[in-house]
Amino acid sequence: MARLVSIVSSGPGDPELLTLKAVRRLQEAEVVLHDDLSSGPILAYAEGATLISVGKRAARSSPTQLEVSRLLVTYAQRSARVVRLKSGDAGIFGRLEDELRALTEAQIPFEIIPGVTSACAAAAMLGVPLTRRLHARRVQFITGADVTGKLPVQMNWAALVDPTAVTVVYMGRRTFPILADALLKRGLPEETPAYLVEGVSGPAPRVTRSTVERLVDELGANTTQPALILYGALIEFPDSRNPVG
Amino acid sequence: MARLVSIVSSGPGDPELLTLKAVRRLQEAEVVLHDDLSSGPILAYAEGATLISVGKRAARSSPTQLEVSRLLVTYAQRSARVVRLKSGDAGIFGRLEDELRALTEAQIPFEIIPGVTSACAAAAMLGVPLTRRLHARRVQFITGADVTGKLPVQMNWAALVDPTAVTVVYMGRRTFPILADALLKRGLPEETPAYLVEGVSGPAPRVTRSTVERLVDELGANTTQPALILYGALIEFPDSRNPVG
Repeated sequence: MARLVSIVSSGPGDPELLTLKAVRRLQEAEVVLHDDLSSGPILAYAEGATLISVGKRAARSSPTQLEVSRLLVTYAQRSARVVRLKSGDAGIFGRLEDELRALTEAQIPFEIIPGVTSACAAAAMLGVPLTRRLHARRVQFITGADVTGKLPVQMNWAALVDPTAVTVVYMGRRTFPILADALLKRGLPEETPAYLVEGVSGPAPRVTRSTVERLVDELGANTTQPALILYGALIEFPDSRNPVG
Repeated sequence: MARLVSIVSSGPGDPELLTLKAVRRLQEAEVVLHDDLSSGPILAYAEGATLISVGKRAARSSPTQLEVSRLLVTYAQRSARVVRLKSGDAGIFGRLEDELRALTEAQIPFEIIPGVTSACAAAAMLGVPLTRRLHARRVQFITGADVTGKLPVQMNWAALVDPTAVTVVYMGRRTFPILADALLKRGLPEETPAYLVEGVSGPAPRVTRSTVERLVDELGANTTQPALILYGALIEFPDSRNPVG
């Protein structure tokens, strides 16, 4: 069996949002290196595999990205079927480049299995189209936190101060007061809709519907639960059967 | 059994990129309204269902969006389990709002199952991270065609003329000469990498690696095969095992 590392996107958390290909790779895996966010039911598909947690969470002792890349290469040199399970879609805010570079340098073949990114899951839950004909022809994803946890510098403000686009901020709860202040100062209308979505696709999702100006006072405690912020040209068609609070 | 319309994202085309939830909804469906792009192996999961094609393709006689919405409501009033299968992720360039509005007005409960959007599938195939720490902190999706097939007016050029973002243009092959010209005139560097990706996640994907300036002359025939264009802060870690030509 030829050696192969599969970079597998696990989706936003709900095991039912795994792709068939992701399930197959987990079932065939000998070793799975996974993030903290990978849930038990997802890892249960890898029943034949050794599970290695390489999660990185703020304020916890955990492997650095360099160590994760090294571990990945080390396991890939020992085992023919290694899965690197990454939450959401691996290509979006997953620091994929570091791991691909390490594999490339070590001449280890790999494949990438795409997945459902959290923004799509949040939008589906809310009944909010991420794009709309005429009214929202651009959707963009940004990160609210750089490696040090601060709002990244050198933002493209003209891109972000745009009430006709839908913007999704990943990992942006902590820095949203600074972001919102900068957006409003540069002319984004105060009443631009903004939603905080916590625990997307988990058992108890929570949504705070607000505006860019008011959401700053409604961010709540900075829990470890992952949160997304959506703002811009949002229009909501609530799921009447299963509304989220 | 309570009436429910499931708006199901089918992913980019590869049946293996369906989510488990999408498969389950197809298996339980009584009626499936699907696009042209939904492949046979995907529809095969709906073995108990009546299949209704509501595909819209350029230059073919096919239902208008209004007719699709009406059909959806009509079938939902007759059957308890209707699936509206939409390619990619339903919330991204799928005119989802029209169908949700029709269902809401008819007071028909619905849910939305998110999926893998084509941009993520293309990036995974290429080994191109859609975001990178420090170098590509923003990824944006735009459409290259409005309802009439032309490049939409009133683009946010400052957002698009940004070599430090990754931009993915959906349905953009035909209008790319106009888009590229506008981007270059407004200052996007000529050498900005640009890739044309045809038949993403299909049996014979094809990739043209170029620059924003040169790709205009390399777009090839306007086939019916769906195509994406990526440009901006692209860096490629080719899948050595399974390179795409």
